[in-house]
Amino acid sequence: MRPEPFAPRIYNGDERFVRDETTGWIYHRVFNRALYADTDRSGIVYHANYLRYFELGRASLMRDVGFPYAEIEDSGYVYPIVDLALKYFQPLVYDSPMWIHTRPADLERVRVKFEYVILHAETADLVCKGHTQHCALNAKGVPTAVDPITVKTWKTFPNTIKT
Amino acid sequence: MRPEPFAPRIYNGDERFVRDETTGWIYHRVFNRALYADTDRSGIVYHANYLRYFELGRASLMRDVGFPYAEIEDSGYVYPIVDLALKYFQPLVYDSPMWIHTRPADLERVRVKFEYVILHAETADLVCKGHTQHCALNAKGVPTAVDPITVKTWKTFPNTIKT
Amino acid sequence: MRPEPFAPRIYNGDERFVRDETTGWIYHRVFNRALYADTDRSGIVYHANYLRYFELGRASLMRDVGFPYAEIEDSGYVYPIVDLALKYFQPLVYDSPMWIHTRPADLERVRVKFEYVILHAETADLVCKGHTQHCALNAKGVPTAVDPITVKTWKTFPNTIKT
Amino acid sequence: MRPEPFAPRIYNGDERFVRDETTGWIYHRVFNRALYADTDRSGIVYHANYLRYFELGRASLMRDVGFPYAEIEDSGYVYPIVDLALKYFQPLVYDSPMWIHTRPADLERVRVKFEYVILHAETADLVCKGHTQHCALNAKGVPTAVDPITVKTWKTFPNTIKT
Repeated sequence: MRPEPFAPRIYNGDERFVRDETTGWIYHRVFNRALYADTDRSGIVYHANYLRYFELGRASLMRDVGFPYAEIEDSGYVYPIVDLALKYFQPLVYDSPMWIHTRPADLERVRVKFEYVILHAETADLVCKGHTQHCALNAKGVPTAVDPITVKTWKTFPNTIKT
Repeated sequence: MRPEPFAPRIYNGDERFVRDETTGWIYHRVFNRALYADTDRSGIVYHANYLRYFELGRASLMRDVGFPYAEIEDSGYVYPIVDLALKYFQPLVYDSPMWIHTRPADLERVRVKFEYVILHAETADLVCKGHTQHCALNAKGVPTAVDPITVKTWKTFPNTIKT
Repeated sequence: MRPEPFAPRIYNGDERFVRDETTGWIYHRVFNRALYADTDRSGIVYHANYLRYFELGRASLMRDVGFPYAEIEDSGYVYPIVDLALKYFQPLVYDSPMWIHTRPADLERVRVKFEYVILHAETADLVCKGHTQHCALNAKGVPTAVDPITVKTWKTFPNTIKT
Repeated sequence: MRPEPFAPRIYNGDERFVRDETTGWIYHRVFNRALYADTDRSGIVYHANYLRYFELGRASLMRDVGFPYAEIEDSGYVYPIVDLALKYFQPLVYDSPMWIHTRPADLERVRVKFEYVILHAETADLVCKGHTQHCALNAKGVPTAVDPITVKTWKTFPNTIKT
């Protein structure tokens, strides 16, 4: 089954953001390359390592909208993942350049969801799509309402872009 | 939302296999402990590392039914993951003992699916559930019919258990 | 340059310990297999992953002498690594069975050192040798005298073996 | 024991290279940040993950002098690590910004050595120092003379910098 085409265009002249022409969603993007450490003996990137790329995507998004995730944890919250999924279309190999696209998707009372699309940076091949859903916990590890900074990020993205 | 209870009972007197009383499915199981390397600064196992545990689960299953995955690759096949999902219920921490339960689930013409359930080995808490779907590729990287050994494993599990 | 031969013999009838006939040192040992996740595109285990094996070695040693490392951290200490080295002689590949040999080596006032030797479990080929040196820190992160349990482990090894 | 001070100054107006005022050596440098995935439950970067940073350092060096390592492997060589060592002075934590400094050090007939220094990018604290030594293997896995491109890199660094 063919995935829906992902057709990113630079958004508003800022290279860090794109608009997917298919869905209209805005994504943050960050460039990265596959390390030798990321590959396995079949010559491609080991499936679990795409989750590192997703982490890099959401950390970069948070930083570029002005709220590094480290600051959110410092304010007394932690956001463990409660659910994730990934579909793989075309593998990356050693040294493959990639664009990691990330967008803040659903916002619920105690949970937030990020969506990701990775493209090969030269061929523009669709590499994988996925999501991670996170639950807000307070310092005692109890589920709690999503913190105000994260709510703001979700509600105003990408208009809070720090330039 | 509460997950369906997972109620494993030793199957047929063989400690390496259990029957889930809720669904009737038979699972292979293998014991493991979380390394310090697997944890992150929030004190729990980093989400991507559960995919290592899943790999340990399916490798142990294949070996215990008599067909180590290395032999399948040596015969000219490779089974990259095309789809995976994971739900997390209760985190593991450093040194947590766990049972990794794995079963061969769907068998299609060019794809196979494993399902996994991880339990804390002392508390029997449900840690996570997930699946990985793999596509059979031949030596040239072209999708191909699932190899005969894997088909046999799926069709006869757990009756081909090597004792 | 050829490494000194490592010639382990089961020690005192306990399969978890060996005596190196060359040096006379006693080592704890634990069995492990290389995961697909541990390999890289050259087909061998990625060099950094041997440090996971070393961690498994020292965690198993501590547990088998009766003092799991988790308990030492619970008592208010942490032992970050301040120095390590590794020499590689023969690579492990996917699914390679290995014996990880670990011994408590030097004991200083605030530092302890482990030494490791990994052998291929079937061919007995020497895979790698290495050490890790750890500094005792108290709960505030300040270097402090090595905790009494660790001192005891170093001074009595392997005579405190829990059977 | 205090390490020798590392005193990097931008070299020749090119931000990608520095000269250490203490030793006079020229290093390539690349910026990076610690991921959550890199940390462990003690709150710092797990010791093995600095080897990923070293890999990023040497891959970036090779690319910036015009010879990506992927091309060297494509020409029929592979450079597994035969020896490495690391000294840790000050830990990195989640999201720590760092400069990874790498220089081509010894060149032997079949072996090459890289040296590394990591500094915290804001405080300039010395984080760790280390080296990796690599052995040239041909396509059959036999030790062979270091390839001409690598020899050239070692002999002319940093004068072959691609601008």
